[in-house]
Amino acid sequence: MKFEGKRYHSLWYENEKLKIIDQKALPFDFRVVELATSKEIINAIKDMSLRGAPLIGVAAAYATFFAYRESLTKSDSHYYYETVISKLKRSRPTAVNLQWAVNQIDNAIKMGLEIDRILSFVKNIENNEISCCKMIGDNGVLLLKDIYNIKAHKQINILTHCNAGWLATVDYGTASAPVFRARDNEMDIHVWIGETRPRNQGGKLTAWEYFHENIQHTVVADNSVGLLMRKKLVDIVIVGADRIARNGDTANKIGTYLRALAAKDNNVPFYIAAPMSTIDFSIKTGDSIKIEERDENEVRYIGETPIIHELSPVINHAFDITPAELITGFITERGVYKPQDIKRLAL
Amino acid sequence: MKFEGKRYHSLWYENEKLKIIDQKALPFDFRVVELATSKEIINAIKDMSLRGAPLIGVAAAYATFFAYRESLTKSDSHYYYETVISKLKRSRPTAVNLQWAVNQIDNAIKMGLEIDRILSFVKNIENNEISCCKMIGDNGVLLLKDIYNIKAHKQINILTHCNAGWLATVDYGTASAPVFRARDNEMDIHVWIGETRPRNQGGKLTAWEYFHENIQHTVVADNSVGLLMRKKLVDIVIVGADRIARNGDTANKIGTYLRALAAKDNNVPFYIAAPMSTIDFSIKTGDSIKIEERDENEVRYIGETPIIHELSPVINHAFDITPAELITGFITERGVYKPQDIKRLAL
Repeated sequence: MKFEGKRYHSLWYENEKLKIIDQKALPFDFRVVELATSKEIINAIKDMSLRGAPLIGVAAAYATFFAYRESLTKSDSHYYYETVISKLKRSRPTAVNLQWAVNQIDNAIKMGLEIDRILSFVKNIENNEISCCKMIGDNGVLLLKDIYNIKAHKQINILTHCNAGWLATVDYGTASAPVFRARDNEMDIHVWIGETRPRNQGGKLTAWEYFHENIQHTVVADNSVGLLMRKKLVDIVIVGADRIARNGDTANKIGTYLRALAAKDNNVPFYIAAPMSTIDFSIKTGDSIKIEERDENEVRYIGETPIIHELSPVINHAFDITPAELITGFITERGVYKPQDIKRLAL
Repeated sequence: MKFEGKRYHSLWYENEKLKIIDQKALPFDFRVVELATSKEIINAIKDMSLRGAPLIGVAAAYATFFAYRESLTKSDSHYYYETVISKLKRSRPTAVNLQWAVNQIDNAIKMGLEIDRILSFVKNIENNEISCCKMIGDNGVLLLKDIYNIKAHKQINILTHCNAGWLATVDYGTASAPVFRARDNEMDIHVWIGETRPRNQGGKLTAWEYFHENIQHTVVADNSVGLLMRKKLVDIVIVGADRIARNGDTANKIGTYLRALAAKDNNVPFYIAAPMSTIDFSIKTGDSIKIEERDENEVRYIGETPIIHELSPVINHAFDITPAELITGFITERGVYKPQDIKRLAL
């Protein structure tokens, strides 16, 4: 995707290193960082220099490959490799893409393939991620076209949450892919972006992406999203996902559930855009999804500035669960599905 | 209420000036500021050095009195007075308490009463505000006691929003009054406080109050409140109000509506605590309530630190409307009422 006229991916492999756009520096600094070791990738995942469930998956595939490559020069190579993989799997608990990608590459390694073949497996995951997002765009834009036609080509308002844009994937994004396709089709669109406390990925990352992609948008405090819907200023909600259970219950950035409730109360269609790799067929409902709690200082401080009374306790939940009954549908690379059809996709 | 062991009101009249606790400096600085003129009071209302619908009402009563007192020494005293009153009424558009209090004092002035009598009308409003809040506590604590008994004296969890504490009134607060009474009754209580973006009155003011009042509490990002309810960590929601329509629709801090939706979805009782002066019997529904939009920089910056991509547009809504059907009841100084009974209180 585009930044100052140049096309980028959110990560790429170059000279045996993984290059990433440092998402902690955005939108104020555009900085490309080199990650040379599995440990550096794990740290980048943990501190959210790279984030977004699909992107974490791809980065984790590279980290698995790096760990294997590093292990070849160690005396206790098996122990070294397994220790890194275990740390990697625990780096972010909620997104299933991470576990999925690690297992894919780990299987290739355990098959005893040559190192170049293993790297090609990693690149397959990367390329597959890109084409999934592109197809999510192809499938999702049809929903936007329907609304656009019903509104007789008056501007349509899309509400999103957090960043499920190209920064959260390798390219195109998930929730953003239909938006980019609508823009390519010269539809008149406007996107509402909640700032997405506590880490402000909406106001920082999604707003930055849409500015550079020339898509009309407005940032609001998360608290505003209900009012926007009551004022009939939202035609459709599209958000990403970190893990989807068999029944359609969906873990996504904290606050997604509140948006789904407001959408239901105002008859606004509510869609999850996510690749199939985000579906965890091993769990029946969202109750089994572990919700990550992150450092309370993410809520307490903006930069160096405290914004909470310093002697008051704080809890920082990173995700919530939106129950399937509040979800209109899932936009995947295979098509658009109702929650009750998710379990059938396992076949 | 208490700060470092000393009892305070949020404002008081002393040596012909209005003294206030500067709420913009809290929780990091406790600073008492003197307001000597009507203009200084209006500016303090506008920049939210003093805020909270009931407190704004009392301050506006003083401002009306100050404007009259100032006008006596002006050549164009009538014009001067009316100009100030007009500015005062426009200083914050959503809370009805401001209009109500200005009209009360304006009527006293137009009756041609002596200046000391007018001041005693202002002090009546102030004292009445205090006793209303105290009675809101008396009425509201009964609801908490019922829940406490049902839970066999296990800790009860109250969720609030923004600051409807003693800082928002003159003393006791509205939503906080039942909490203080529960504490006095040695009930085991814990309060969840959403940080309340964009101005963070929850994390800054309510957390500060509860710390100094020795009430157990935890601050979360606003996005967390749905998750808390789904995890059954909330027994009751109590928030304040800025304006209540005849049908029970309620304007309150932006994000209140989302909390009401989450409460409904999880069968958690949702109460508004407000004095009768917050009810605007002149309007039928919430649709007639003007929603204040404030400076976008309140969303863009925390102190000097930008948190939104600088070239992206921002809208800052200060309030939203919670429809009556999501409200379990209203805790007022006269008792606890269902939404459908609000209109009967006009009689």
